[in-house]
Amino acid sequence: MIKLKYRTGLKDMPSYDVVERDWNIKVNANESNLNMPPLVEERLMARLSCVAFNRYPNEQVDTLAEQIAANFNLTKENVLIANGSSEILEKLFFAFGGRGRKIVFPWPSFSMYKIYAKFSASTAVPVDLREDFTFDPIAFVDAIKENKASLAVICSPNNPTGTKIPVADIEYIAKNIDCALAIDEAYIEFDGGTVTGLLKEYPHMMVARTFSKAYALASARVGYLLANKKVIEMVSKACMPYHVNVLSAITADTVYQMRDEYVPRIQMSIAERKRMSELLKQIDGMTVYPSVTNFILVKHPKATQINEYLESLGIGIRSFGNAPRLENCLRLSMGTREENDTWYKAIKDFVEGNVQ
Amino acid sequence: MIKLKYRTGLKDMPSYDVVERDWNIKVNANESNLNMPPLVEERLMARLSCVAFNRYPNEQVDTLAEQIAANFNLTKENVLIANGSSEILEKLFFAFGGRGRKIVFPWPSFSMYKIYAKFSASTAVPVDLREDFTFDPIAFVDAIKENKASLAVICSPNNPTGTKIPVADIEYIAKNIDCALAIDEAYIEFDGGTVTGLLKEYPHMMVARTFSKAYALASARVGYLLANKKVIEMVSKACMPYHVNVLSAITADTVYQMRDEYVPRIQMSIAERKRMSELLKQIDGMTVYPSVTNFILVKHPKATQINEYLESLGIGIRSFGNAPRLENCLRLSMGTREENDTWYKAIKDFVEGNVQ
Repeated sequence: MIKLKYRTGLKDMPSYDVVERDWNIKVNANESNLNMPPLVEERLMARLSCVAFNRYPNEQVDTLAEQIAANFNLTKENVLIANGSSEILEKLFFAFGGRGRKIVFPWPSFSMYKIYAKFSASTAVPVDLREDFTFDPIAFVDAIKENKASLAVICSPNNPTGTKIPVADIEYIAKNIDCALAIDEAYIEFDGGTVTGLLKEYPHMMVARTFSKAYALASARVGYLLANKKVIEMVSKACMPYHVNVLSAITADTVYQMRDEYVPRIQMSIAERKRMSELLKQIDGMTVYPSVTNFILVKHPKATQINEYLESLGIGIRSFGNAPRLENCLRLSMGTREENDTWYKAIKDFVEGNVQ
Repeated sequence: MIKLKYRTGLKDMPSYDVVERDWNIKVNANESNLNMPPLVEERLMARLSCVAFNRYPNEQVDTLAEQIAANFNLTKENVLIANGSSEILEKLFFAFGGRGRKIVFPWPSFSMYKIYAKFSASTAVPVDLREDFTFDPIAFVDAIKENKASLAVICSPNNPTGTKIPVADIEYIAKNIDCALAIDEAYIEFDGGTVTGLLKEYPHMMVARTFSKAYALASARVGYLLANKKVIEMVSKACMPYHVNVLSAITADTVYQMRDEYVPRIQMSIAERKRMSELLKQIDGMTVYPSVTNFILVKHPKATQINEYLESLGIGIRSFGNAPRLENCLRLSMGTREENDTWYKAIKDFVEGNVQ
């Protein structure tokens, strides 16, 4: 058997086995638990039936970029569409990273940042959030300067903590650093507090967005980057031609055209987050972190057992096991009111000893 | 203005502007000129209307992998699905490449190989095809050994020359090298001559395939890699989680289930290739390279002018301009019989001086 020469470090990269069991209630991936609104689906199916399936992607991605640009009072040269904000972030790490380059981000945050750093041959510099998971902008600026970082990334609101990072803090950072600053706004629609209004003033700032959360489109893998023309031009060079397929582009385009249809469900998710946060606080021993997203992070001494009990009921939540800083933490995304009542009752029953 | 620190070499990478003009006849991208068969589309629309758009990809990609594996008498652990064979090749270059690593491939061949080499920080070692674009397996093996290559890539049949690379030549290479050997079979359905039958015997060999050509699905960007389990496991590590979206996976799955529907059109494309090759040979000064694909490469002293004339008629063909080894070459993919007759008449009229 010939021994193949794989890339240095590749064998130590994680393998992803993302096939899920068939949960009764699934609140483990910050997805929307509501499918596409019927009016949107009807329009989408009509458009998909007109696709030239035999042709490579052409103007469909541009059309989506133009529509998004218009909404932000930008031009399509300020927008890059990709396979989820995942691909946007991967390419940002690649475009600003490389051997000897350092990329700074708060920690805990989106777990993939460390992976993107490895893939781009860059050094990840995680900067600890405070004990209560609030963000310290001064410590963050210091870390960027000390490390002579080429890129700083902030997930705002932050995943998995759910916590808000004030726009003023981000502007403070933008003012005080001289490297690229990417804001991952995957959950921004549940909060407001976007920094997109600062893009024109700070051309080294960029914003990543996704259709996967508020727009309930995780299946299609569409995200986008808003940034200065020059940044878009350079990051685009890191993307392969035809990286975004036509079906996803048309699906996202239809959803974005009809995004008013999503306002009620986003408001419902926010209302549920508030309701569930208050209820969770009533459970003995439960620490509830303040969330401005579609999920809630909690901490409980019996987190592992709670998770196992919920699994036994077919309820999928996210448990962080022994992950540093996230020991005994559980993350629950907001389902329907009924789903939320169900997992809540299960947690409460378990903690109060009302189960075998 | 802050000067951002982009990755070394990024600014020298090409920019892709892939928006096409609206051709009357488009035979410039080796696409199928026939859209999805109505029966397939009907089945597809029924399946798409059942998608959980709000959920991340789950078992859909595995389902496709299982179906493909079964067709090749392999298991799903031998199959990796990706965004076109483009992503497969990009990841192969990444997985076997890196600083100081050399990747060998025949030249001229698929233009992206040089780009994938740059992106993976590897050194591209193109090995010249013979003057008539036939492949020299001995020279190729020598180049692999001299360069201590970590990966060899062969596009078979070769794009853009359209020429066949005999299975015996590929087996000779597999026997005589001790690095990874990837065969890009993007156009194999128009020929036969696949090396998939050799995969079990040569575990360092891998085969990339696409749905974009024979299966007329360029819009969806789906391709796959067939290889040894261990190779698939390692190359998968180079792919981001959820890199393939649900809509594309379901579309490819439906097409593959109904692939018998594509036999007549593939046979038609082969028949047209034969017919057009003979006709093109009758044009004064035209060199026609023997093709086993859905396109034909020709060479003519007035190639540039022919291309300009066809453009003026709204006929898009691929001209290679001054590209080394491809000077005065034109590539024409097979459209419908009527489309082929139209571009042929235009070329003939132009060469014979029957146009202003």
